[in-house]
Amino acid sequence: MTKRRPGNGFFEPPEELLGVGEPFSLAQIDSSLTPGFRGAKADGEAILTLRDPHLADLQQRLFAEGRAGGQRALLLVLQGMDTAGKGGMVSHVVGAVDVQGVQLAAFREPSEEEKAHDFLWRIRMQLPRAGMLGCFDRSHYEDVLVPRVHGWIDLNELERRFSAIRDFEWELHAAGTMVLKVMLHISRIEQKRRLSARLDDPAKQWKFNPGDVTERAYWDEYMAAYQDALERTSTVYAPWYVVPADNKWYSRLVVQELLVAALERMDLTWPTPGYDVEEQKRRLAQT
Amino acid sequence: MTKRRPGNGFFEPPEELLGVGEPFSLAQIDSSLTPGFRGAKADGEAILTLRDPHLADLQQRLFAEGRAGGQRALLLVLQGMDTAGKGGMVSHVVGAVDVQGVQLAAFREPSEEEKAHDFLWRIRMQLPRAGMLGCFDRSHYEDVLVPRVHGWIDLNELERRFSAIRDFEWELHAAGTMVLKVMLHISRIEQKRRLSARLDDPAKQWKFNPGDVTERAYWDEYMAAYQDALERTSTVYAPWYVVPADNKWYSRLVVQELLVAALERMDLTWPTPGYDVEEQKRRLAQT
Repeated sequence: MTKRRPGNGFFEPPEELLGVGEPFSLAQIDSSLTPGFRGAKADGEAILTLRDPHLADLQQRLFAEGRAGGQRALLLVLQGMDTAGKGGMVSHVVGAVDVQGVQLAAFREPSEEEKAHDFLWRIRMQLPRAGMLGCFDRSHYEDVLVPRVHGWIDLNELERRFSAIRDFEWELHAAGTMVLKVMLHISRIEQKRRLSARLDDPAKQWKFNPGDVTERAYWDEYMAAYQDALERTSTVYAPWYVVPADNKWYSRLVVQELLVAALERMDLTWPTPGYDVEEQKRRLAQT
Repeated sequence: MTKRRPGNGFFEPPEELLGVGEPFSLAQIDSSLTPGFRGAKADGEAILTLRDPHLADLQQRLFAEGRAGGQRALLLVLQGMDTAGKGGMVSHVVGAVDVQGVQLAAFREPSEEEKAHDFLWRIRMQLPRAGMLGCFDRSHYEDVLVPRVHGWIDLNELERRFSAIRDFEWELHAAGTMVLKVMLHISRIEQKRRLSARLDDPAKQWKFNPGDVTERAYWDEYMAAYQDALERTSTVYAPWYVVPADNKWYSRLVVQELLVAALERMDLTWPTPGYDVEEQKRRLAQT
């Protein structure tokens, strides 16, 4: 097996290794492993830093295309249990590109106004504009996880939502937005370690919420809900990836690589100016 | 004269040197100088990088305060002629903090919908939420510059807008948003150099707009409009700073320092948890 992209450190492309196809079993994915990567933490962290400029360059081209009238965008959807590393992914991977080209949205518990609308209403308002790299920290997938785990919706409603999500994501695809969906997968014991670390550090206690402990009692139900949601909504046009995330350096490297691969597939070039360069040089010279 | 903050490289605080008070004359500010700083470009760039983590740490505390129910925010307003370096400031200075705590807005020519409303309407929709570092790339100040230069509004309307802006910024201040306003000041000849560089580089041609050359004919009118706008709207609660910006490294260092100084004045601490830490440790241990 040879590396497909020099310098990314993977001996198998993560988009092939970690994509959700059929058959798929979340229970059989070991969140402590680092599939496809040769090397240890230090290697992974070094590669992450070395590849940042490449990701930033690709994103800049997408942004330029959007400015020049292009309609394409890229949307990264991040899901995962509390402490899975969604926020860190935003800061360290998405945060490495030019902030001017990034559109972030973090979806918490819906407000009263949001609840009064269809579950996709608040999502639609935060879709990335043309040329942008959008990133959702939680998303419309919360609405097929939380209410299901707690028995607030029945199976008919769940089916309706899966179907609505598939239609919605097809719409996005048809309108030029490439959608990548990532579940950061940690183990129950790793979550306990991370929650404990938050409680121990005065600079991190604000991130802790007593509700996070309460939800741990529903771990197995959440995994079952994720299994179904991923299986029912992983499509060619909006694929899911389950990324083992007990090792933050590994999950970050994978998501960086998924973004790079997606942008490379878009075949981005600097836009052709919509004006005559030589003419503008002459005009400028006269001022 | 001694340094007030070790490590920032300034022998006089930029917030004192560059603030717009009375008397004030924009015409007398030399955009090629680097007031208050001892050192050359390499020193400036090194300090900028070294100080990034300090700025990021302060911003993180503001963000945490917002999550814990605090109402404060910080808004950086960037103005300047085309190519003055507003975008680069966003990428390189604001972009150095955690992107999760940043709320950016770039205001271009108003849309038809925006024109149908008062000029502050679109601005209000983009104000930073509690805990956020907001950054405006252009702002409501465009509405006292462009229409004035082109004679689309009369002096009565201009006065009304100055007054509306002062009231609006007082409101922001009263609601807990600290407002810093920065004019990145370049010379006419430096702008010509930068526009020319954009035209010469295929990776930058998309940033060039023929209208930028047209507007150069109004340079003096723009400077007169800035002179008035800054004089009439620099207040204790929302001060203006004119930052010499022919040297990008210097203007970035100054804005970094203005942000650091503003956040330091906010006296930010990590929020006290709204729960009993020991109790939560016990609960977690049982899961």
